Amino acid sequence: MSGHYAIGIDLGGTQVRTALIDVDGKILKRASEPTRAKDGADVVIDQIVRLAACVSDGLQQAELAGAGVSSPGPLDTTAGVALGIPTIAGFAGYPMREEIGRRLSLPVALENDGIAAAIGEWTFGAGRGRDNLVYVTVSTGIGGGVIADGRVLRGRRGMAGHVGHMSFVQDGELCVCGGRGCFEAYGSGTAFAQRARAAALDDPSSSLNAVRGELSSEDVFGAAAKGDRLAQALVRQEAEILGRGFAALLHLYSPEVLVMGGGLSSQFGTLEAGIVQTMRVHAMPAFRDTPVMPAELGSNAGLAGAAVLAFERVRQAGRP
Amino acid sequence: MSGHYAIGIDLGGTQVRTALIDVDGKILKRASEPTRAKDGADVVIDQIVRLAACVSDGLQQAELAGAGVSSPGPLDTTAGVALGIPTIAGFAGYPMREEIGRRLSLPVALENDGIAAAIGEWTFGAGRGRDNLVYVTVSTGIGGGVIADGRVLRGRRGMAGHVGHMSFVQDGELCVCGGRGCFEAYGSGTAFAQRARAAALDDPSSSLNAVRGELSSEDVFGAAAKGDRLAQALVRQEAEILGRGFAALLHLYSPEVLVMGGGLSSQFGTLEAGIVQTMRVHAMPAFRDTPVMPAELGSNAGLAGAAVLAFERVRQAGRP
Repeated sequence: MSGHYAIGIDLGGTQVRTALIDVDGKILKRASEPTRAKDGADVVIDQIVRLAACVSDGLQQAELAGAGVSSPGPLDTTAGVALGIPTIAGFAGYPMREEIGRRLSLPVALENDGIAAAIGEWTFGAGRGRDNLVYVTVSTGIGGGVIADGRVLRGRRGMAGHVGHMSFVQDGELCVCGGRGCFEAYGSGTAFAQRARAAALDDPSSSLNAVRGELSSEDVFGAAAKGDRLAQALVRQEAEILGRGFAALLHLYSPEVLVMGGGLSSQFGTLEAGIVQTMRVHAMPAFRDTPVMPAELGSNAGLAGAAVLAFERVRQAGRP
Repeated sequence: MSGHYAIGIDLGGTQVRTALIDVDGKILKRASEPTRAKDGADVVIDQIVRLAACVSDGLQQAELAGAGVSSPGPLDTTAGVALGIPTIAGFAGYPMREEIGRRLSLPVALENDGIAAAIGEWTFGAGRGRDNLVYVTVSTGIGGGVIADGRVLRGRRGMAGHVGHMSFVQDGELCVCGGRGCFEAYGSGTAFAQRARAAALDDPSSSLNAVRGELSSEDVFGAAAKGDRLAQALVRQEAEILGRGFAALLHLYSPEVLVMGGGLSSQFGTLEAGIVQTMRVHAMPAFRDTPVMPAELGSNAGLAGAAVLAFERVRQAGRP
């Protein structure tokens, strides 16, 4: 069938992942390898092209609708240009859409990773059938994407939805974005683990104090599950921070559902009560009934969303 | 000409204002009176109906496209229902659109006052010709509205764009919304005047210390213009608070321009340098070139935006 498949490409700071995906969002083949993040744009584009060829091997060109790329920002998705990717060298002002399209001889859609994952969850995951949703990924950083009034919210240069960079604490911690006191600088998995490390040093009664090597989020959740008081307090605090940020996002975008993805969403069950309780305090009454749900597609949300965009591009090109 | 005029209605906590407006946004007639805010919904609706009749007197029904109402929220604009207006009694769960439509025998559009003003500035004011803009009104509170990707951002129940209720300070001041530490609780004209009152009491060297009666925003700007140090420091602090909030709004919505309206925008020239400087510090590089501009329509933005919605409704109804 013509254009029945798309190649989803998820460029991340640690892994380059590709998948062959059909129009129903089913992943048929996968390929991935560690991102050569320090070796420059040409090397990384080579990785993408090889992995894309790998999953589309044996298909006729006509069977492919195109490729969709989910990439860390900031991107100018209107122009198809990476403005600079903090975690991967060589992408400042790089014409990513054009370059990948030329190498693959396919139409390419380029999207911010937060928005791509939002589209994935909207089309195939926790946000199916909704006209309004906010997707928040809580991981190394905090990113996201917004669907509003049945459409993807893009804004100037496609840069809307940088939900991790609300100013959250006055004169607060320095954020990787260069600002101060951002939501990301408090709520991310990185910030959570840093708080835990500092607190563990000061509390010999906690099992976290005895962890060898670098204390991780998983260590804290593990200790909390076993009844460690300090770990439980840290988890409660993290839930409160997320709840306060999520309540702000309800006021800003008025979604029907807020979907939480990213590494920390694997502990959604543990965090949920604290998140919901804090949101009730901070959200205005008219917003309090908005549910918070865990993402359903896990780490495949970006791949799936990128594929959706590739199919979308073809449909739009076919319009009169 | 059929449907060449619309009635704009601006329901505020202190004034009910109506105007007859043509399709070019020109205000032809006006009427207003103080809102009888404590007397219940029936009395206020009577005010609206009388003032609307006043400005449309002598016109044929066919010459009127309809009426547009700008009202404080929270409203469910999808259903046309006021969910509760903190400053005007009697509007909890009140079917405002239906009731005003029935009394005027006209089609009525109902919109949140922040969004209505955003539409006014987008159509006739500082945001003309843009596809992406954020309008922020800084007055008694902080409200606003967002145009994204060439459309009004509405979200579930039309409640998107409550930009005053981002959590801004951890464990911060109680906000009128019931939350804590909101942008509004720090950046509004009310908060500015409260800070000034407290600071003036502690500083006998400032001319503000000698102000009789309740110290207002205008007093502070006036003293700052005359060189009063405390007043100048207060103005600088207010600009920093606004700049920090505005930078967050760039990340969240990625507008082409941020338009500042409301009472404090009359002092835009005084605040501008501090706002822009703070935004440069807090905004990520890709967002730093976004201009901040004062609103052009002043207190008429809501009236004009409400009229635009009335015309829009007719155009949409005429579509196949």
